Amino acid sequence: MPETSAVHTVACVGAGVIGGGWVAHFLARGFDVRAWDPAPDAAAKLTRLVDAAWPALTGLGLAEGASRARLTVTGTLAEAVDGAGFVQESAPEDLSLKQKLLADIDAVTPDGVVIASSTSGYGMTEMQVAAKTPERLVVGHPFNPPYLIPLVEVVGGKLTAPWAVERAGEFYRHVGKTVLTMEREVPGFVANRLQEALWREALHMVANGEATVEQIDTAITDGPGLRWPVQGPMLTFHLAGGEGGMAHMLDHFGPSLKSPWTRLDAPELTTQLRDAVVEGCDEEAGERTIADLVAERDRAIIAVQRAVDEARRG
Amino acid sequence: MPETSAVHTVACVGAGVIGGGWVAHFLARGFDVRAWDPAPDAAAKLTRLVDAAWPALTGLGLAEGASRARLTVTGTLAEAVDGAGFVQESAPEDLSLKQKLLADIDAVTPDGVVIASSTSGYGMTEMQVAAKTPERLVVGHPFNPPYLIPLVEVVGGKLTAPWAVERAGEFYRHVGKTVLTMEREVPGFVANRLQEALWREALHMVANGEATVEQIDTAITDGPGLRWPVQGPMLTFHLAGGEGGMAHMLDHFGPSLKSPWTRLDAPELTTQLRDAVVEGCDEEAGERTIADLVAERDRAIIAVQRAVDEARRG
Repeated sequence: MPETSAVHTVACVGAGVIGGGWVAHFLARGFDVRAWDPAPDAAAKLTRLVDAAWPALTGLGLAEGASRARLTVTGTLAEAVDGAGFVQESAPEDLSLKQKLLADIDAVTPDGVVIASSTSGYGMTEMQVAAKTPERLVVGHPFNPPYLIPLVEVVGGKLTAPWAVERAGEFYRHVGKTVLTMEREVPGFVANRLQEALWREALHMVANGEATVEQIDTAITDGPGLRWPVQGPMLTFHLAGGEGGMAHMLDHFGPSLKSPWTRLDAPELTTQLRDAVVEGCDEEAGERTIADLVAERDRAIIAVQRAVDEARRG
Repeated sequence: MPETSAVHTVACVGAGVIGGGWVAHFLARGFDVRAWDPAPDAAAKLTRLVDAAWPALTGLGLAEGASRARLTVTGTLAEAVDGAGFVQESAPEDLSLKQKLLADIDAVTPDGVVIASSTSGYGMTEMQVAAKTPERLVVGHPFNPPYLIPLVEVVGGKLTAPWAVERAGEFYRHVGKTVLTMEREVPGFVANRLQEALWREALHMVANGEATVEQIDTAITDGPGLRWPVQGPMLTFHLAGGEGGMAHMLDHFGPSLKSPWTRLDAPELTTQLRDAVVEGCDEEAGERTIADLVAERDRAIIAVQRAVDEARRG
């Protein structure tokens, strides 16, 4: 792969919501983007997706030279990857399709260029089986919309070379992403596992008539969802413990892990797990005291509420 | 209970993080607050909690006449509820303690005044067993911090009268809350069930060395957490389906419910459940097209990110 700073062209394979979102992101960051999708209406679909994203991206500030005119929708896969310094695959979630497509991409992509898959949950180990140079294949899992949500989860498969994982992380950081590099493959990675647990519990509640679709959304948007852009679940509970922090929280609310508050069984709250969580919170908080974190959270929640209210008014 | 608009005094029982947060909220909304907690340092603790919240509340805008001087910490429970038009109990999560305390509160609170419990997950049916007039006991479950997060979940027990549930909802709305009234008791209510599923999956990941505490927080703050104050999990996936909305999403990603993406088993995605979720999203979206929702989401996410960045800088 060329040095990150020498990458000027990105190839995007797949013209769905995620593929189109990546196209918009790379265009806004000033890249030439070459896109390919086998669907006959791929160009029209991509144009619509990019046009929908462009006002937001313009508001955020485009990179110098960024232009929608720098998108080329190609007639073949080989033309798309020709001259690309990075390849992002965002095809439908279908394992055999991904295996074949990644092998096809690998066969025509210039040597040494990293090929990343947007897969929501397959491991690269199971996807890279048919590729000739599987060492450059990595997962680079974004969140919708990829042009606004910073997180990208990066993880390699058994045959992926460490340099490819490193290069992918470098490249994503270079284009403004927050990179979470996983040491090993876990189905669903990190964020989707968390999100999926919540989503499954929500589906159970709807299936059982315990809550409506709208109640579930309100429970999040007007409840814990207001805290999560500010402090994740761990720091949130660090503050729920009052002056005693996460240690007090776990010692006090630990028994609620046995409560039937979700269909998901909790792990045993061993001393080891308790200490790992407490120490992790302390590390994450760093120099910030509980009082600092409370003040930061409060300022942010108020600002978040205002921001959402204004955005809803249009 | 007096008419909602005639309530001028609120009694708060319990001086922990949640009790103190309620005190701050009611003070900021211009109420006289009478608080009681058996701890010897309750007054000092409440003062610290209210002082920590006050800058945020002042920034938000205080109600006319709102003042921290309108807090009275009383020496006995009976003095706290004397003259109160609404009672909020926020004692530690201990069922037998709650049963006895609610009976004690009920015994000294003026007739017809609603008594709400902040419990995170007990049903009122199991808590109201020792009270003489259980019909006025309801759950009024807030989120930390109660002075900023709008959501309050309201639900009665078997012996609760419908008027008490209604009155509690009215009162909370009157003080600026978003009220989610549940038709029936489910352990953990709605938001905590969703949050707890995510939390348990997070603990499993830490326990198994699949992610660190900080990675879990980053996965949420820089990932799906940025969407959740804007659109809950249902509308989020409505937009993940592209132009086809939730229907396309379920038909396309439905099989991922069988993936081992969390330890929580999903419900069977029956036609009935699929249709309920699709119809619920359509109802919630109302007049807003997918394109409208995308534009609204994008504006809000950008504003939320800016708000959080600024708040972190202080």
